[in-house]
Amino acid sequence: MNKEHYFDWAATAPVDEEIIREALETSFKCWANPSSIHQGGKEAKDILEKARTSVATSLGVKSENIFFTSGGTESDHIPLLATLNKPEKGSVLISSIEHPALREQAMALKKCGFKVNTIPVNKDGIITPEEVVKCLTDDTLFVTVMAVNNETGAIQPIYKIADAITEFYKGKRRPKFHVDCVQALGKIPIDISYKGIDSAAFSAHKICGPRGIGVLYLATKAQMFEGFLRGGGQESNVRSGTENLFGITAISKCIEKYRISPNNGMNERQALQEEWALEFIKKLSTIKCCTILPHIRLDQISNTELSSDDKIPFSPWIVQASFKNIPGQVMVRALDAKGFCISTGSACSAKKQSRPILEAMHVSQGEMESAVRFSFGSSTSKNAMDELFEAISEVCKTFER
Amino acid sequence: MNKEHYFDWAATAPVDEEIIREALETSFKCWANPSSIHQGGKEAKDILEKARTSVATSLGVKSENIFFTSGGTESDHIPLLATLNKPEKGSVLISSIEHPALREQAMALKKCGFKVNTIPVNKDGIITPEEVVKCLTDDTLFVTVMAVNNETGAIQPIYKIADAITEFYKGKRRPKFHVDCVQALGKIPIDISYKGIDSAAFSAHKICGPRGIGVLYLATKAQMFEGFLRGGGQESNVRSGTENLFGITAISKCIEKYRISPNNGMNERQALQEEWALEFIKKLSTIKCCTILPHIRLDQISNTELSSDDKIPFSPWIVQASFKNIPGQVMVRALDAKGFCISTGSACSAKKQSRPILEAMHVSQGEMESAVRFSFGSSTSKNAMDELFEAISEVCKTFER
Repeated sequence: MNKEHYFDWAATAPVDEEIIREALETSFKCWANPSSIHQGGKEAKDILEKARTSVATSLGVKSENIFFTSGGTESDHIPLLATLNKPEKGSVLISSIEHPALREQAMALKKCGFKVNTIPVNKDGIITPEEVVKCLTDDTLFVTVMAVNNETGAIQPIYKIADAITEFYKGKRRPKFHVDCVQALGKIPIDISYKGIDSAAFSAHKICGPRGIGVLYLATKAQMFEGFLRGGGQESNVRSGTENLFGITAISKCIEKYRISPNNGMNERQALQEEWALEFIKKLSTIKCCTILPHIRLDQISNTELSSDDKIPFSPWIVQASFKNIPGQVMVRALDAKGFCISTGSACSAKKQSRPILEAMHVSQGEMESAVRFSFGSSTSKNAMDELFEAISEVCKTFER
Repeated sequence: MNKEHYFDWAATAPVDEEIIREALETSFKCWANPSSIHQGGKEAKDILEKARTSVATSLGVKSENIFFTSGGTESDHIPLLATLNKPEKGSVLISSIEHPALREQAMALKKCGFKVNTIPVNKDGIITPEEVVKCLTDDTLFVTVMAVNNETGAIQPIYKIADAITEFYKGKRRPKFHVDCVQALGKIPIDISYKGIDSAAFSAHKICGPRGIGVLYLATKAQMFEGFLRGGGQESNVRSGTENLFGITAISKCIEKYRISPNNGMNERQALQEEWALEFIKKLSTIKCCTILPHIRLDQISNTELSSDDKIPFSPWIVQASFKNIPGQVMVRALDAKGFCISTGSACSAKKQSRPILEAMHVSQGEMESAVRFSFGSSTSKNAMDELFEAISEVCKTFER
């Protein structure tokens, strides 16, 4: 597979072989169980804690608030499932554009007597603080809104939502607010230490790291967190299971290298991507059968009078578009035949062919069926994006005939 | 750390660098998301399914019954937590010697309205079918008894227990029977296809594989299994989360190479280990302050009239012993100072200094506090075991003075 022509970074990223090889060597040197009290165990424990400190520093939080998990799904599950410990069966509030790790898992809580409510998304792909507030009730125990949507790239106003929740429950006990940051890390700057964010989920394989490793941020110390998932009590009882030192070392290095920061060159890379995505969208919009989704993304590019404060922000690493009368799967296969990897919605629902996020946005049936996602990453080149555009144009021309 | 003098294999095994390096190269070649429908995704999916077939062949079951998880803990959690889907809040029955992944997680189900009952263990460390039957009730939904205990090495009569459960519920709907095989794989022959076993858990890192990868066997097809943990729907909805192709490739190779089988030399290795463990136990018993735990293990070695059918079987890869007036942690540290890694109980409870398994066996307080575990693996040499014995003798002599 030609890595240059890979445009499915939101599904998974090409691996950083150097970081991963180095992490493997570290794990070969320190292979004992970090929970063992002998010398070998202590050496492994030392590597583990160094990685934790590194992640905490990169994310601007304390190391006591960082926990290693088996991936994004588990980092989403742990805070959500903690709700099961509550003696009162209240309600759980999920945005209508969440990843299935939260959407599907929340639905499962119904079997345990909890109510599950969904926050509507607007046609622009945004969960507004106002809509969140409308859904809050006295028995809300948990609220979750992702930072960057994995299909539209729409950046959600999570800080304003955190403020709105805090304000709504002023003087009362407020629900926990969880933010899935899987598509935000390495894509936009993110401040999880923001007041009112109680937990955040991250995954290594979206930022060139290995599969099977994730990070969970908890605003509270582990001692104050009662999880539902239990076992050997590793990670201060937050995540049981023998610690994956290889994965842990790798994710810490990937976060260091790929998070958007002024210290690692990624600020500049992101600025470039903003330019490239803008040009890509403009070029796509010249193709007759193409519609950018959501529509506002192109509208606000064309509207030169809009101030940046008035614009809905989109991740420049994800572009969603619909090609009239070309089913999404057909476009994916046509580009695949030309050596370009893209996807319809998320990989996690690719085979189900359902598009719950677009449905929630009330995208028309035709646009939904023809929607595809182009997603980019740190090693995507401008040249490759130009080649992608040419390939898309060719496919569209074939269909015009 | 000197790998030769590592005797804490039950906590984790030294890694098979060759297998792991090869698996990493495979994952570098096929790094796309196996759920993606483009060419890269298909290639990754192909590797994934080959690994599944290999594991199924090694374990003597069909590949449709094999699922990859993040490790032993999750492989235990999935079948247990499926109980949460039951509309009737019945009871869960766990043996009193289970790993905390089952023991602690079962206790958490109480918060969701389920009853949790514990099957007593006898003083020899065995969960008998008779005791299991005594604990069965009409509302039992789930029963779990591990195959080999991680602290005593006692091999549990899981086939007889499966028969007893089936017999008890003849003509009625019977509870699910789960077997944690983490300490059995690569240590004793195991037949998970045995009628009445509904699920089984395996972990890679106990058989020289990487951390963060495990296998779950389900006797039923995925379509017939309703899990409680949900997300992207990978692994036929049994385990969500992007598939860890590196770990999956590695665990399949490790199971191939290290399971006890006539095809890979491990039958012969196990026979040798039986001899070596026997000699090690006999030698230990000559140390005045040493008691083998449970006592029956030495008693039945001395009793030459016992037929092998009458003997309680122990894994030759785990030996537990108590050294009078030498606290377990002191013995661990004294041997550590000499370059030998051993442990008190399991690594998962090393720091809590509690010994729930020995407590359940009614081992005396003094023996419990002085108990340590020696555990061995495929690359343990007879010579190294002799050196371990010498080191133990020396430590004991220091304390006699």
